[in-house]
Amino acid sequence: MESTDEPQAPVDGKPGVSRRTVLGAAGVGAVALAGGVGIGAAVAGATGPEPDRIVAFRGDHQAGIVTEAQDRLHFAAFDVITDSRDELIAMLKRWTAAAERLTRGQETEPDGALGLGEYHPPSDTGEALGLSPAHLTLTIGFGPGLFGPSASDPERKDRFGIAHRKPSALADLPAFAQEKIEPSRSFGDICIQACADDPQVAVHAVRNLARMGVGVVSVRWSQLGFGRTSATTRSQDTPRNMFGFKDGTANVRAEDTDTLDDWVWVGPEDNPPAAQWMTGGTYLVARRIRMDIEPWDRANLLEQENIVGRTKGEGAPLGKDSEFDEPDFQITSYGSPIIPATSHVRLAHPDQNNGAQLLRRGYNFADGSDGFGHLDAGLFFIAFNRDTFKQFVPIQHQLSRKDAMTEYLIPNGSANFAIPPGLKPGEWWGQHLFA
Amino acid sequence: MESTDEPQAPVDGKPGVSRRTVLGAAGVGAVALAGGVGIGAAVAGATGPEPDRIVAFRGDHQAGIVTEAQDRLHFAAFDVITDSRDELIAMLKRWTAAAERLTRGQETEPDGALGLGEYHPPSDTGEALGLSPAHLTLTIGFGPGLFGPSASDPERKDRFGIAHRKPSALADLPAFAQEKIEPSRSFGDICIQACADDPQVAVHAVRNLARMGVGVVSVRWSQLGFGRTSATTRSQDTPRNMFGFKDGTANVRAEDTDTLDDWVWVGPEDNPPAAQWMTGGTYLVARRIRMDIEPWDRANLLEQENIVGRTKGEGAPLGKDSEFDEPDFQITSYGSPIIPATSHVRLAHPDQNNGAQLLRRGYNFADGSDGFGHLDAGLFFIAFNRDTFKQFVPIQHQLSRKDAMTEYLIPNGSANFAIPPGLKPGEWWGQHLFA
Repeated sequence: MESTDEPQAPVDGKPGVSRRTVLGAAGVGAVALAGGVGIGAAVAGATGPEPDRIVAFRGDHQAGIVTEAQDRLHFAAFDVITDSRDELIAMLKRWTAAAERLTRGQETEPDGALGLGEYHPPSDTGEALGLSPAHLTLTIGFGPGLFGPSASDPERKDRFGIAHRKPSALADLPAFAQEKIEPSRSFGDICIQACADDPQVAVHAVRNLARMGVGVVSVRWSQLGFGRTSATTRSQDTPRNMFGFKDGTANVRAEDTDTLDDWVWVGPEDNPPAAQWMTGGTYLVARRIRMDIEPWDRANLLEQENIVGRTKGEGAPLGKDSEFDEPDFQITSYGSPIIPATSHVRLAHPDQNNGAQLLRRGYNFADGSDGFGHLDAGLFFIAFNRDTFKQFVPIQHQLSRKDAMTEYLIPNGSANFAIPPGLKPGEWWGQHLFA
Repeated sequence: MESTDEPQAPVDGKPGVSRRTVLGAAGVGAVALAGGVGIGAAVAGATGPEPDRIVAFRGDHQAGIVTEAQDRLHFAAFDVITDSRDELIAMLKRWTAAAERLTRGQETEPDGALGLGEYHPPSDTGEALGLSPAHLTLTIGFGPGLFGPSASDPERKDRFGIAHRKPSALADLPAFAQEKIEPSRSFGDICIQACADDPQVAVHAVRNLARMGVGVVSVRWSQLGFGRTSATTRSQDTPRNMFGFKDGTANVRAEDTDTLDDWVWVGPEDNPPAAQWMTGGTYLVARRIRMDIEPWDRANLLEQENIVGRTKGEGAPLGKDSEFDEPDFQITSYGSPIIPATSHVRLAHPDQNNGAQLLRRGYNFADGSDGFGHLDAGLFFIAFNRDTFKQFVPIQHQLSRKDAMTEYLIPNGSANFAIPPGLKPGEWWGQHLFA
C-alpha cells in the first residue's frame, strides 16, 4: 500500500502522465477544469477506463468541493474506535491509496476484486467492476471528536496527541431553534463525502473504505442523496429541491475564485502555527433537513413563493424576471416589500449577513416513509465555508428564528468537519495533521 | 380529470398520435420495443418532451414489467384508509390520468405546477419540471388486504364488495426460514412501482400519487433502489449486486415471449370467471433483502463463488467459461459437484423447481447505517410470476432451507401484489376489478 509514495502513481499498471501536469497549476482552476467542463470533456494524458470521467484526486484543494456537482451522493461519518495513533495513520495511508484508485475507476488495489487467489477474501467488493469512474470524488474531513471531547463523546481524551492542532473553527455546532437533532444522524470523527454520477460507484467507494477501516473506524451514520440540489460551476443548470423550487441559484461557483478565497478557503491568518495544516482547506457543514412536504404541498403558490422569495417556475427573485437577476429588497407593493422580510432569499442573502457566503453542495434524499403515511424526504444540506462560526452559524441562527420556511423544515442531523487542503504527489490524507 | 375517457389522450394539448397505433399491436412486443430497444431509439409519432425517453403507458400488459429495466426505483405500498368504494374508484381514475401524463414527462395535470393561480396550492409539486421523461414507468398492483382480511389487518371486512373477485394466487406470503419480516416494511393494499433512469422523476411520481390520494390511501412503506440488478432485455448488460456478483444472468427477458406466456402472464384458465380481470396480468413479489455485507466481505473468493455457483468476474457457471453458458450440474471434481448442492444457482434453477421461472426486476439499495457500524444495504428483490404460490413460494422455501447464501441474507420486508393487465385507451387502473 505504498503507491501513494510514488510521485506519479501508475494507472492500470502503466506509468501515468500526471493530470496535474497536463492541466497546469492545480487548484481551483484545475479542479474546476477537470470536474467542470462538462461530462464529455476529454482530459489529455490520462489513461485507464474512461479518462474523461475521471476527476483529479490531487491538487491544491480536495476534489468534491468546487468540482462540478455530480448527480449522486453517499456521505458517511465514522467514529474512530481505536486509541492507537499508529493504527489510525496506517488506515489513512491505506485509504488514500485506495481512494485515488477508486476515483480512476479502479479497484481498491490492483486485482483486488478477483486476483488475490481463491483462498483470500477479495480486497475489493466488486460491485463497481466494469462501471465508469463516473466523476467520483472522495473528500475527507475530520470532526471535533478526533481531537478530544465532543458532542458524540464528551468524556473523550486526546487519544492521538493532536488537541493542540485543532483549528479554531472546528467545534460542534450550537443548538438552533426548531431543530430536532438525532445523535445517530449527527457528529462523527471522520467524514467521507463520495459524489459520483453513478450511485453504485459512490456506494462502492464508501463501503470499501468502511471495510478497509475495520477495527479502526466504524460507520456512525451514512446518507444517500439521489439528486444534486446545487450547481457549482457556471455551466451547470440549477436543479430543484423537494419543495419544487430551483435551489442554489446564487451559489458560489468554481469560477468565483476571489469569492472562494474570501469565503471558502482557509487562509494562513485563520489559524495559529499548530493548525496551519488547514491552510487551503475549508469546513464542511452537513445538515439532514427533513422537509415536511405534505403540509408544504397544501400551501398555495403565493405562500410558497413568498416563503422562498423567488418564483417557482423561473426561479426569479420576486419582482424580477429572470433567475439570475439580483434580488431587489427595496421594491414594495402597497407599502410592503415584494420580497418579504421572512423570506428565505432575503434572510440568507449576503447583504443580511455581513457579506457572508456559503458554497452549497446539497442533495435531495428520500429514505422511505415514516410510519405515519409520510415520505421521509428532504434536503441533505452540505455547505463549505472558511469559518463555520462566522458564516454558517450566524446565518443559520437568523434563518432558524425568522425564516418562514422553518415551519416546513425538520433538521435532524448535524455535523461540522474540517476539510484539509488537497494532496501533493505522495502525500496521504491527514499527513500534515499527524506529521 | 376525465382525460382518460378520451380514446386518444392529447399530449401537451395537441392531439397525439397513439403510440400503440404507431407501434402496431401492443403487448409484449410493443412494450419491449418502446422500452427495450435502447435508450436512444426514437418513437415516431409521439410528441412532447424527449419522446425517445417515453415508455408507452397503455398496452396489453402494464409497462414496468418487461420494459428494459431502468436504472432507478421508487416503490411505494399504500394502505387504503377509506371504506368508500366511490372514493377509491375516483382516486384510481385520477391516478390513471396523472400517471399517464407523468410517464410522458408532463405534470400531473396541465399547468399543475404553476398555472392554477397563486391562491391555489399547485397540483403538481414541481421538482420534475424540466426533467426528461426518463423512461418512467408506473405499475400498479393490488394487495390481499384490498379484498378483506390480510396480514396487515386480519380483522378487515370486504369494504369494497370485491372479495369474490380475489384471484386465486393473491394471498400473503407464508413464513420462510431465516427471515425477519417487519410489518412496517411489508404488505400493503395497493403498490406503485416507479422505475426511471432519473431517480428524481421516480420520486416525484410516487410523491404526487401519494399526495393525490390523501384521505383515500396512506403510504405504508416505500423503498428507493439506486441501481438495477436485473436485465430484462437481451440488449442489456448484467449488473452487479451488493455481493459484487452479476445478478440475473438467467433472467427471463422481454424477447422470451413463450416463457412469458408460460411463467409470467396470467391466463384465462388460471382464475374463475369473477377474477378474469387478472387475465394478462401477473403477480409481483417484493422482498427487502438486507445483505450482511460485512461478513460476506470476509469470505474468501472460493467460498463466495461456491455459494453463488458462478465465477465472480465473468459470472460463468462454475466449470464453464462464459456468463451465458448453461450451468452443468453433472460436472464433478474429486467426486463432488463443481456447482455445489447448496449453491444459489443450482437451487434456483428451473431444473430444480419443476421448470418454474421468475422475471426478476430487483434493485440495489443502501439506506444509511444500522447504528452498529454496518451499512443497511442489500437487494430490493422484485419478481413477476404467473402464480406466486406455484413459482416464487416453492422456490423460496427451497432456497431459505438449503441455500448457503441464506447465511448472509436478512429478508425483512415482504409483499405479494396482483398486477392487473395493461389498459386500453380510455380505461383506468382497476376498472375491470371494480366494474
